[in-house]
Amino acid sequence: MILKLDNPKNFSEIINIISELVLEVRLKVNKDGMSITAIDPANVAMIVFKLPSAAFSHMEVERDEVLGVSLDSMKAVLRRVKSGSILTLTREENELKFLIQDKIRKEFNLALIDIEGEEKPIPNLEFSSKIEMNSLDFSEAIEDCSVVADSCSFTSEASKFIIRAKGSLNSFRSEFTDEVSITAENSNSKYSLEYLQKMIKATKLSEKVLINFSSDYPLRLEYKTPSLELSFILAPRVETED
Amino acid sequence: MILKLDNPKNFSEIINIISELVLEVRLKVNKDGMSITAIDPANVAMIVFKLPSAAFSHMEVERDEVLGVSLDSMKAVLRRVKSGSILTLTREENELKFLIQDKIRKEFNLALIDIEGEEKPIPNLEFSSKIEMNSLDFSEAIEDCSVVADSCSFTSEASKFIIRAKGSLNSFRSEFTDEVSITAENSNSKYSLEYLQKMIKATKLSEKVLINFSSDYPLRLEYKTPSLELSFILAPRVETED
Amino acid sequence: MILKLDNPKNFSEIINIISELVLEVRLKVNKDGMSITAIDPANVAMIVFKLPSAAFSHMEVERDEVLGVSLDSMKAVLRRVKSGSILTLTREENELKFLIQDKIRKEFNLALIDIEGEEKPIPNLEFSSKIEMNSLDFSEAIEDCSVVADSCSFTSEASKFIIRAKGSLNSFRSEFTDEVSITAENSNSKYSLEYLQKMIKATKLSEKVLINFSSDYPLRLEYKTPSLELSFILAPRVETED
Repeated sequence: MILKLDNPKNFSEIINIISELVLEVRLKVNKDGMSITAIDPANVAMIVFKLPSAAFSHMEVERDEVLGVSLDSMKAVLRRVKSGSILTLTREENELKFLIQDKIRKEFNLALIDIEGEEKPIPNLEFSSKIEMNSLDFSEAIEDCSVVADSCSFTSEASKFIIRAKGSLNSFRSEFTDEVSITAENSNSKYSLEYLQKMIKATKLSEKVLINFSSDYPLRLEYKTPSLELSFILAPRVETED
Repeated sequence: MILKLDNPKNFSEIINIISELVLEVRLKVNKDGMSITAIDPANVAMIVFKLPSAAFSHMEVERDEVLGVSLDSMKAVLRRVKSGSILTLTREENELKFLIQDKIRKEFNLALIDIEGEEKPIPNLEFSSKIEMNSLDFSEAIEDCSVVADSCSFTSEASKFIIRAKGSLNSFRSEFTDEVSITAENSNSKYSLEYLQKMIKATKLSEKVLINFSSDYPLRLEYKTPSLELSFILAPRVETED
Repeated sequence: MILKLDNPKNFSEIINIISELVLEVRLKVNKDGMSITAIDPANVAMIVFKLPSAAFSHMEVERDEVLGVSLDSMKAVLRRVKSGSILTLTREENELKFLIQDKIRKEFNLALIDIEGEEKPIPNLEFSSKIEMNSLDFSEAIEDCSVVADSCSFTSEASKFIIRAKGSLNSFRSEFTDEVSITAENSNSKYSLEYLQKMIKATKLSEKVLINFSSDYPLRLEYKTPSLELSFILAPRVETED
């Protein structure tokens, strides 16, 4: 297995983001590219990451690989990759080798680890509301909500998307109409801001975010570009009181 | 009540500075503008802040308002105001509404709170020494003093202003003559650096600071511009030993 | 004693670096300039610092001086020196006076202190390997090693210098050939990364670093420019297992 990335900064960024939600992952490599599917320890959020073969400047895969890696170790190694460096990943027995080539040639070897538990399949979800909007505007609204509460509500109508949060004392509300593309029925659902704040770190990957949800139903946030896909599924907060 | 600020950054800065000294304040609004008078919990420092009506791009006040607000909440909301945003404050029943308008329209509602205790009047002080100097030079001297001690002395003579600090091991001294404008008798007084370090955060508001004091008597620091006034009164440290 | 530095930033930087390894030092001043020799409390590292008389824009030394100073105090004072300021050090009885002249004239006085213990002589070491290389490349390799372990190995051959680290799970290796100037026998030795990480802060002082070592023998790192010398001697880690 040889995977070569001419500009590994995005990859490094994504590993950082995922490491906020999970500690260890199965990194899958096959002819289509690299992918990670992982669930956070509290079983509240799922991460789906795909880096297609076109994202690599060079790729050789003899057989499908499933590599158990510690994200903390991987993050620490990727932090040592300067911009302008070329990163080549190879597998050597029970190690994943990171060859970093800039002025100096460096090699990190990470021990592969066993990941406990079976991999959960990606759930098949149907959403009544799909909102496409500027990812930075969405990120700002999530940060605004975090000022007043620890959860927020998404409400959609035919031509309106509302993000709201209500704490014990203070509240926030922002309404989006023309700036967003809406395909929605009337839906309303509540999500944890602690998780959303980790997920919006993907804002820098893509100018747009696709927000899929239904009433009291999971949320799927999708950050996609031609060269990568990072999606998050988040369980709703269903509360009797409010 | 409608108060509109086209450039709320200074207002946000001032709330930050005041929040270092007090947790909750009465925000007073009348036809002359907005004002805050507050005393820190240890009864050592008083803050006097005035934002005249001319500082607002639009202002409507039907009756005098006294709004009890938590500075931590207000600071957190104002931190979400980007430069270039327009901020409109309105009162709606028991809430203070922050309408932030930039590309997106956002609303924060803060619950008004009861402030315990009567408001103390601003003391009528007469000073024998008045020094006007560059606010940054003053701020640097306070920071210099903090390197060696936890209090500092101000000494004035007809043509000299001296800032000094003496710790158990090390000492600092800076003398100002031509760079400052002095109207002073011989005075000497000592003040807490912990408080002064919080007050000099107002340096960015105004190029000049007016330092009023007398021997073993309160200090009044005044940061004034045509569009705002932020003053601090600080009790002296009177010690028998030195 | 009068020592005048027109650009005290480097001096300030060096005191910062030394303060990471020792708390108090004897500052020696004689006609040749200023020097510090110090050993860290754990007896693992020695620092040798020399600032020749040519580094001072003005220097008057009537007799040899040995000034005991707290590096924390000195560091705090030097942090107050802005770039563009002129620093003059004088001795006045039991104090070291720092006169800082920029727009404002400031004076700090630091109490001189007694340093316990005799000063250790600089050991006379003979090295089988001498590597001269870019100081930033060396610094980066040390930081890379720190990602995987708490010690690293230096290995030299006739035309190769290898820096390696091996943790319980992960490892790092970098090989230098053409980029470095090597005068070496086959040598291999292991050193603490905790100490090396403090020493490589000297990278900003000099573009080159001279790395002297032998098998299971102390290391001497030398950062030299025409106007200063900062060297470190570090005991090897000799372990039976590994």
